[in-house]
Amino acid sequence: MGQVRIHNFTVSLDGYATGEGQSLESPFGHAGMRLMSWAMGTHTFQGMFGELGDNNELDDSFARRWNDGIGAEIMGRNKFGPQRGPWADETWQGWWGDNPPFHTPTFVLTHHVRPSMVMQGGTSFHFLDASPVEALALAREAAGDRDIRIGGGPSTVRAFLAADLVDFMHVVVAPIVLGRGVRLWDGLESLEERFTIVPTSSSSGVTHYTCARR
Amino acid sequence: MGQVRIHNFTVSLDGYATGEGQSLESPFGHAGMRLMSWAMGTHTFQGMFGELGDNNELDDSFARRWNDGIGAEIMGRNKFGPQRGPWADETWQGWWGDNPPFHTPTFVLTHHVRPSMVMQGGTSFHFLDASPVEALALAREAAGDRDIRIGGGPSTVRAFLAADLVDFMHVVVAPIVLGRGVRLWDGLESLEERFTIVPTSSSSGVTHYTCARR
Repeated sequence: MGQVRIHNFTVSLDGYATGEGQSLESPFGHAGMRLMSWAMGTHTFQGMFGELGDNNELDDSFARRWNDGIGAEIMGRNKFGPQRGPWADETWQGWWGDNPPFHTPTFVLTHHVRPSMVMQGGTSFHFLDASPVEALALAREAAGDRDIRIGGGPSTVRAFLAADLVDFMHVVVAPIVLGRGVRLWDGLESLEERFTIVPTSSSSGVTHYTCARR
Repeated sequence: MGQVRIHNFTVSLDGYATGEGQSLESPFGHAGMRLMSWAMGTHTFQGMFGELGDNNELDDSFARRWNDGIGAEIMGRNKFGPQRGPWADETWQGWWGDNPPFHTPTFVLTHHVRPSMVMQGGTSFHFLDASPVEALALAREAAGDRDIRIGGGPSTVRAFLAADLVDFMHVVVAPIVLGRGVRLWDGLESLEERFTIVPTSSSSGVTHYTCARR
């Protein structure tokens, strides 16, 4: 059976995975691109979003593992878009254009379901009003024996960790203090008893934590 | 003029520098000794509190800087002891026995002042109901041209950071999720604009952050 994995999930020193005030112009709210600036220094992310520049080899070594062997993604609605509540219309197709970087079935958790969308490059979006366990069962069906990625945001990651459904998590701590937003670690007291946690610092200023289920 | 420094100040992944429920038996509350277990793997801390055992060289390299060139310490009352409010009696002399490891004048910030105490080995405790700026002025007088250490706990460290009085800070992140207690980073949004922050991970599982004022 495939593993449940989280990759490149970045938090500030004070544990925020996104800032306050998400909008169309600012997917991470007041955090802007500060959380993910390390990622834009890797060929992995440059390849998704633009031309290749300088590559931080250590950061890239961690970053590039994100899609290996993945057969489906589960994400929260706030990763999919800045809208809240019922959909005013159904034209929004996510932040990623016609050919999103996922290239697998992608399940969006939302209380406001809408019809599935088939994008270019193998990505399809499916909208589910479901618990983590239910969503995971559907994602497993789509993924076959490949792994499932929990794509974020923080509330979704936290829900899967709280339900003890995660096998591997790569968390990146960026050397910034965001002060406000949505935290990753809340409600996860003693998480270290369930995971072997290993830190690796990078010259970019971030620290990579791998958390492997014991 | 001496610098204002913080050393070996340890927080959990979720930013707590101490747990909930401090007591005589448990100076760090429900955190127990988990935050400081890395320190007990260093000759620096073993030398203060017991016999020398195995030494983690990298952790010790950071740890041993704590007292070099220090001429005075400022600490909060909750580092000095578990009591709250007016002193029931004045027999409490801190957690550290007759010969505390500070070996300098040590200023304890409290709304409930009491007479100074001269201990063995050069440590003296002085009780001040004072702002960070006022306490620092007195500590500077005591330290001469040597540096001042802000010894903790988190509320005291935060107050000095908020007042922009800190020149150098060494924060250690332990790979545990405490879930509750007193946080370090609250109210310090964008601290990275004032400090150059460099992480170094250790085989012990902790990550050392040096934060040097820009």
